[in-house]
Amino acid sequence: MYVLDKQLQQDTHMLGQFPLCDVLLMNDSQYSWVILVPRRANIREAYHLSQEEQHLLSNESAYVSQRLADFFEADSMNVAALGNVVSQLHVHHVVRHIGDVTWPKPVWGAVPAKPYSSDQLTKLAEDLGRLFSDKLESLAPSSDGSELY
Amino acid sequence: MYVLDKQLQQDTHMLGQFPLCDVLLMNDSQYSWVILVPRRANIREAYHLSQEEQHLLSNESAYVSQRLADFFEADSMNVAALGNVVSQLHVHHVVRHIGDVTWPKPVWGAVPAKPYSSDQLTKLAEDLGRLFSDKLESLAPSSDGSELY
Repeated sequence: MYVLDKQLQQDTHMLGQFPLCDVLLMNDSQYSWVILVPRRANIREAYHLSQEEQHLLSNESAYVSQRLADFFEADSMNVAALGNVVSQLHVHHVVRHIGDVTWPKPVWGAVPAKPYSSDQLTKLAEDLGRLFSDKLESLAPSSDGSELY
Repeated sequence: MYVLDKQLQQDTHMLGQFPLCDVLLMNDSQYSWVILVPRRANIREAYHLSQEEQHLLSNESAYVSQRLADFFEADSMNVAALGNVVSQLHVHHVVRHIGDVTWPKPVWGAVPAKPYSSDQLTKLAEDLGRLFSDKLESLAPSSDGSELY
């Protein structure tokens, strides 16, 4: 059975679910950073998924990249599945700007995260909920039992 | 028209061509590291490709990851499209081993590359040519004009 890794749960805020992936906002105010985690058990690498699931992951990843790049006016998107620390397959999507705190180096393990304030997190989660609304399935059913989006 | 970026050309050894991507061996003996570059002009992000090309890239990336992981007994595969330094879309596939020179940190910008000797490079290129033979198209046509693989 699929269970989201504890470390990922601790470091992120859950935005909702795409058809294949959980959609997580990294709680680091230094970058706009979204992580996709396929809801499949015991998957460490993308090639462990079926080819159909790999294509779904590719679609969801491209969607997130394009939306984030447009919304935050990215100079570059860093898209990566590393898994050296957390082995559960998770795909990072990090908006990079020329001159950001680690530019042009990778973000992982470089500088400590600076968590958002509670207000910032609420506001950003709302913005991203709208940004991803045509693929996000609600975590809770709406009053008539259908999904919110 | 597609032209391989000069920096990528300089840092790598060309192994051949998959249906979508050029297949490059990174000339750094500290890691087994293969880079895929879609042969399409003016592409900086995966979502700039058509969806059909994105799925082809996903297939070729999964193929390389699985073959490398099996052959080199990887503890983890690092698969990433960064583009902070070279903007032409290129997807890294780095075999990671617990205890390698930068483990568990990312490899990019961490320690200077240690190029292979000419003999090592020839031998490894042959090994990888065999490893990827069912997807590699020859760079040169065979005597009867068909492709070698």
